[in-house]
Amino acid sequence: MNEPLTLHEDPRSGNCYKIRLTAALLGLPLVVRGYDIMKGETRTPEFLAQVNANGRIPVLQIGEGGGARFLPESNAACWYLAKDSALVPQDRFGEADCLRWMFFEQYNHEPNVATLRFWLRFVGEANLSAEQRGQIIAKRMAGCAALGLMDKYLETRAFFCGDAPSLADIALFAYTHVAEEGGFGLGDYPAVQAWIARVEALPGFVPMD
Amino acid sequence: MNEPLTLHEDPRSGNCYKIRLTAALLGLPLVVRGYDIMKGETRTPEFLAQVNANGRIPVLQIGEGGGARFLPESNAACWYLAKDSALVPQDRFGEADCLRWMFFEQYNHEPNVATLRFWLRFVGEANLSAEQRGQIIAKRMAGCAALGLMDKYLETRAFFCGDAPSLADIALFAYTHVAEEGGFGLGDYPAVQAWIARVEALPGFVPMD
Repeated sequence: MNEPLTLHEDPRSGNCYKIRLTAALLGLPLVVRGYDIMKGETRTPEFLAQVNANGRIPVLQIGEGGGARFLPESNAACWYLAKDSALVPQDRFGEADCLRWMFFEQYNHEPNVATLRFWLRFVGEANLSAEQRGQIIAKRMAGCAALGLMDKYLETRAFFCGDAPSLADIALFAYTHVAEEGGFGLGDYPAVQAWIARVEALPGFVPMD
Repeated sequence: MNEPLTLHEDPRSGNCYKIRLTAALLGLPLVVRGYDIMKGETRTPEFLAQVNANGRIPVLQIGEGGGARFLPESNAACWYLAKDSALVPQDRFGEADCLRWMFFEQYNHEPNVATLRFWLRFVGEANLSAEQRGQIIAKRMAGCAALGLMDKYLETRAFFCGDAPSLADIALFAYTHVAEEGGFGLGDYPAVQAWIARVEALPGFVPMD
């Protein structure tokens, strides 16, 4: 971790914010390089060849120049930054359980809660394709199911992995705290709301914008 | 890892197979308990209360009786089994890069390649909802993009994380090697086909069925 760290990001993306929040909570310096995904800036030949062949941000760049290494996938980048810190439980089950919530986030939460926010707030409902419009109700239901599962789990817990915050909280916080921008009413999930306040009160916390 | 391990699974699921393959490659004993997801056996009140509130398999159960712990999410369960083995790179970047491919699998690959297999082979196209049918082309394109990205990456590599197999290979192998059951033609991806043969030749390899 002696090499300089550069985050290739779009500041509107919760996936990018996860990495900034992890670095802030750990006090790690991070240089940010911005892209506008709405203008296709992560689909240029240069970006695909040098940064991420998948054409997506965030990407965490470790080092500079010819020896630089590139790490796509937001939760993998958070893991790189935090793996030996207090943000990852250090016992075998706890570590796997932290990853369990991070995989849940990418599979059950992000494709519904984040995608509806992207479609409704940034693309605009009028600009959606018929195929996208046809998925809104299914994504709404799946997103509500994910938030409901989180709410039930948090009824008896301060954070997702025990009494202390972990990468599981950071991963799930990123798009949950802006879920209303995608039309999800957080008033239905009081335990989630109380948990959001706990995350926002952490020492070193930085907001999304 | 001295506690007995039980896998709650449906043998048709590639996500469950990942855990069986990881255990086999590591020589770990695993008791299997089967469910039929087509009959809703993972949505019963007992399953939701005791095994996984998310109503999904696989779940890795560690221990038995009142002290048993339950770990949903296939890739998290593989991590629990393999984290200190040769199946996880032990340097900081390699470990995060292994997770990178496992997150890619759950976000870009599984929802397309595995879902089309489930819909077309097990549900049957005639039984799909109009909303599901409307997603087939988008999932086909996204699945081909994931397979294409893998093929390009594997053109110059034996495995996803260096010269030795890792959990990244196991996670991606599970649904890739049966992608033709979802209508994907693997002939378009020769580097992927060669990699499939390398995984199948690993000592301790077990097939899906």
